[in-house]
Amino acid sequence: MEGNDKIKINFKLKPIGILKTPYEKKAPPQPDSKTNGDFRIIIYHEYLEGLYKLEEFKYIYILYFLNRSKKEFPLKVNPPWSDNKVGLFASRSPNRINPIGLSVVEILKIEKNIIYTSPMDAFNNTPLLDIKPYIKLLDVKEDANNGWLEKGEIEHLMMHIKGIVH
Amino acid sequence: MEGNDKIKINFKLKPIGILKTPYEKKAPPQPDSKTNGDFRIIIYHEYLEGLYKLEEFKYIYILYFLNRSKKEFPLKVNPPWSDNKVGLFASRSPNRINPIGLSVVEILKIEKNIIYTSPMDAFNNTPLLDIKPYIKLLDVKEDANNGWLEKGEIEHLMMHIKGIVH
Repeated sequence: MEGNDKIKINFKLKPIGILKTPYEKKAPPQPDSKTNGDFRIIIYHEYLEGLYKLEEFKYIYILYFLNRSKKEFPLKVNPPWSDNKVGLFASRSPNRINPIGLSVVEILKIEKNIIYTSPMDAFNNTPLLDIKPYIKLLDVKEDANNGWLEKGEIEHLMMHIKGIVH
Repeated sequence: MEGNDKIKINFKLKPIGILKTPYEKKAPPQPDSKTNGDFRIIIYHEYLEGLYKLEEFKYIYILYFLNRSKKEFPLKVNPPWSDNKVGLFASRSPNRINPIGLSVVEILKIEKNIIYTSPMDAFNNTPLLDIKPYIKLLDVKEDANNGWLEKGEIEHLMMHIKGIVH
């Protein structure tokens, strides 16, 4: 097997802002529209100019530092909406080698340095690392699938996303 | 304006593998199917188990460290496929506050610790930080848009993605 030429990364992650959510003690595994409350991204003032023209996009990617994830990361995990054991990289578990979270969120409005969004699946005060535009042309893969998620699991997950009590 | 409660991040990024592409001196701004050559992700042996069931997905997200990006990052940038100046966070520029790249790539096949993929827009030997499954249910946003990209720009970008000589 190939792959022994390891590269060292010498870089200190720098928060560019902070996520505001109603989740203090428990956060849902995926965005849950049952949750009431404001979801906001606050961008630090020095980066405000970087938001120019962002409001023209309907969706954005947010990358954030999972500062409350566990320091242990088994390489096989049990997703909350499944009975399957799957590999860490085939899962969205927050306990990762590099604890970086990724979500697609909808922009509701932007006021100065505050982005009001659809529900985010992150704890309150999670440090934000990056925002990238979700570009229909590049990021919508019509022929994508749901991998190991089985029909029943997909329906269950869908109920969470749509906020249907079950 | 809100936002003065800065959090320090004390974490050292750790490569979990490496990207193999034909790009040594120049890399395209977006995946370019005109390029001939192998595109492979090599996962370090100790993380092999984390790939379990990944092959059931058609697409994955890869997060990688942009180790050849510029250390300067103007907050307004000029995308290669546009005449518009846009904010850094409304762009996919590689020169970012936290130089983390994100791409959606197609899995062609997985053999042991090697993932053969569709074209990636990254330099050869780029350190890989994470793989997450691209899940149709969560990540396909049918109502997404192309933001500030104008019609002509979209067509131009599309030609690159489809590998049409122009």
